[in-house]
Amino acid sequence: MSRADWVTADNAALLTDLYELTMLQAYHREGLQDTAVFDLFVRKLPPNRGFLLAAGLETALDYLENLHFPAEALEYLGSLGQFSDAFLDYLAGFRFTGEVRAVPEGSPVFPDEPLLEVIAPLPEAQLAETFLLNQIHFQTLMASKASRVVEAAQGRSVVDFGARRMHGADATLKAARAFYIAGVHATSNVLAGQVYGIPVSGTMAHSYIEAHPDELAVFEAFARLYPETILLVDTYDTLEGVRKVADMAERWGDAFRVRGIRLDSGDLGELARGAREILDARGLHGVSIFASGSLDEYAIADLLEDDAPIDGFGVGTHLGVSEDSPYLDSAYKLVEYAGEPRMKLATSKTTLPARKQVYRHSGGEGFYGGDTIAALEEPGMEGQPLLETVMREGERLLPRRGLDEIRNHAAREREHLPANLRGLRMSESAYPVAVSEGLKSAVQRLRATLQR
Amino acid sequence: MSRADWVTADNAALLTDLYELTMLQAYHREGLQDTAVFDLFVRKLPPNRGFLLAAGLETALDYLENLHFPAEALEYLGSLGQFSDAFLDYLAGFRFTGEVRAVPEGSPVFPDEPLLEVIAPLPEAQLAETFLLNQIHFQTLMASKASRVVEAAQGRSVVDFGARRMHGADATLKAARAFYIAGVHATSNVLAGQVYGIPVSGTMAHSYIEAHPDELAVFEAFARLYPETILLVDTYDTLEGVRKVADMAERWGDAFRVRGIRLDSGDLGELARGAREILDARGLHGVSIFASGSLDEYAIADLLEDDAPIDGFGVGTHLGVSEDSPYLDSAYKLVEYAGEPRMKLATSKTTLPARKQVYRHSGGEGFYGGDTIAALEEPGMEGQPLLETVMREGERLLPRRGLDEIRNHAAREREHLPANLRGLRMSESAYPVAVSEGLKSAVQRLRATLQR
Repeated sequence: MSRADWVTADNAALLTDLYELTMLQAYHREGLQDTAVFDLFVRKLPPNRGFLLAAGLETALDYLENLHFPAEALEYLGSLGQFSDAFLDYLAGFRFTGEVRAVPEGSPVFPDEPLLEVIAPLPEAQLAETFLLNQIHFQTLMASKASRVVEAAQGRSVVDFGARRMHGADATLKAARAFYIAGVHATSNVLAGQVYGIPVSGTMAHSYIEAHPDELAVFEAFARLYPETILLVDTYDTLEGVRKVADMAERWGDAFRVRGIRLDSGDLGELARGAREILDARGLHGVSIFASGSLDEYAIADLLEDDAPIDGFGVGTHLGVSEDSPYLDSAYKLVEYAGEPRMKLATSKTTLPARKQVYRHSGGEGFYGGDTIAALEEPGMEGQPLLETVMREGERLLPRRGLDEIRNHAAREREHLPANLRGLRMSESAYPVAVSEGLKSAVQRLRATLQR
Repeated sequence: MSRADWVTADNAALLTDLYELTMLQAYHREGLQDTAVFDLFVRKLPPNRGFLLAAGLETALDYLENLHFPAEALEYLGSLGQFSDAFLDYLAGFRFTGEVRAVPEGSPVFPDEPLLEVIAPLPEAQLAETFLLNQIHFQTLMASKASRVVEAAQGRSVVDFGARRMHGADATLKAARAFYIAGVHATSNVLAGQVYGIPVSGTMAHSYIEAHPDELAVFEAFARLYPETILLVDTYDTLEGVRKVADMAERWGDAFRVRGIRLDSGDLGELARGAREILDARGLHGVSIFASGSLDEYAIADLLEDDAPIDGFGVGTHLGVSEDSPYLDSAYKLVEYAGEPRMKLATSKTTLPARKQVYRHSGGEGFYGGDTIAALEEPGMEGQPLLETVMREGERLLPRRGLDEIRNHAAREREHLPANLRGLRMSESAYPVAVSEGLKSAVQRLRATLQR
């Protein structure tokens, strides 16, 4: 058993479902190497969501640029007893040589709209399915959830506290990046700070207080080291903790520069009001109140509706696992092969065939009014096209976008969404997404052929 | 912006919340280097769960053995402007030198029982919090969910199809391992197969069928390459697809060795009955029926209750994100410092102080009857102690356990659980977990001190 149980660019080629490889050997044997087109999209919005925020494209492009089978991977595949030497030789030289069109990260997207279109020789586009879904699904899920939390906080700061309860280590990095795109202000995750340059935030935990005999003494010691810190006041008795901060301010005079206090348990609204009263009565109007502990967009909205005097939120688990909807109904489907449109017919999971463009229409007063999913280069289409070509012949076309640029793009785009889409409790049909006449007749023609 | 946005043993030290490091600098400055004891435990069971299955210990021990701050990590921390050179020098030599006691992987555990007890100089035990929680929380969550799916399948095979919708790349590996411990038979995730030696499974997707003009021809081509394959029959018309398999069997005669068919959409119970009828009518009793598509333990139980003739299940998203409960209420709490018991008092989140042992009692007829959480070496305790010392002075004491050994342990342990605990819809109180008199009086003494 290997101990290198971490995923990196060097072993990501095997992060794929086995059936991709059994299909690849069949394609290789049958000579099916024509160009295929796969759409990556989401079938429907999770409950209460008005839109999704696209994320994950950079990881996807990194993967496609680096895709290769190292010797150990080939050795392992050989040991499974179902892959021929000829096929393993072919995999040794396997690279992604195709084209990618995509919606930019930070753009709002809706059901059935391709976030990504992969155009490549069938085996290349097929193999990438599992990894592309894994990363784009997750990062879009996280950006979409975070967008709601940011919206609920109405401009107050939101800090990602989720690392400890997210699903594994990679999730903590990719989520912190997706959260930042969606407008979260900082993360507690130091590695995400290092890797992406996201602001990091954090001061003290209960264990720090508990390791000392006296709460006031520990506040003072900590503030000597970090004069502008935030003190955690709820280890023993919350309001008593706040009074100790006020006592300290009195004793320290001008040397007191503590930025705020943090409440992490109990009735946060009630405690925040009590804390604010104590602080204000002692003239400490500049000391902010931060709250954390089982927060999500719903809890934040409730607190602010009740006028809780809270200036910032640390949001952990419920954001970090997208608790009310921990997955999206994402799909990666063949829509064209060898120039012919394709679709799956059975049951309700019918997909839209053929290469596409999505057009976003103005609805007046600076707001978007709806989208049309159309066939690529369908005549007569108007509006802003969303998919742009980002990779050709396996290489990125555009310089990597900066994270702040993506974040600003996301903020601007959300400003253009009709206000009702940004509510916390949405119905699915709030934003009109039409299918063009060209695409509709392609579906009908194809359905007729398949049912023959 | 670095592009190495993967977590590995080399950068895992920074996968920590910033507050761990600000506290560490304070501990360093104040000379707080005495021995601390932290418990990692779960506060309560998620809805419907009767028990949890411990997992993640191997990852935790790997991390502690390798914990160090590489030069780039120190450089990044220096750039934050809040860490002194003296502290960064200290971090450069930082290693985990402590002791770990733990419940073996694959053992059932209950609320408030430590899965892990870390005994180390305060800074070492503190820093590890985020990473240890991240991995043990997630792997225990996954093993616990998978245990339910395996139970529901009543001995039929269960294959992990979840990679595409799990939360990031690391999750796909660690979950596949946790699932295998819990009794899942195979994974579609090739990398998990390579890294852990778990059996891998997979044959074909709809895109393979759609890339060909004729469904029967593609079945035949695939079975020539993989004679014992499983054919996916629901791309166009499911029962029509089954008939094509039957036609093929007739034509091929003895050369027909196809193991089964897979249904991936529609009313799986209804379609399985229809498929079984067609197959049996053509004498194909040996062709198995596999089902996949939005399955979880509840759906599997419903199908089998209805006598759906399904022989195996591919389970993806709902297992992979633990959809009905995507997190556990896990915690990592200081319980002792410098030989003195500690606890957090405020609100409902009171924790049990002091070092502990958990004793599991026999309930007769081979079943466990309940547990007692006691103080370490508390006199008069009976039963099987669950926590064992697995690391001392930063080094593993025992040889690494094989994955099959852990899996067998989990299977045996579950046999000893009262049958009602293994149901799909449980109440929290089903298994008695007592707190010993010694621990109760420690809580009372400490409460009195803290409230003074």
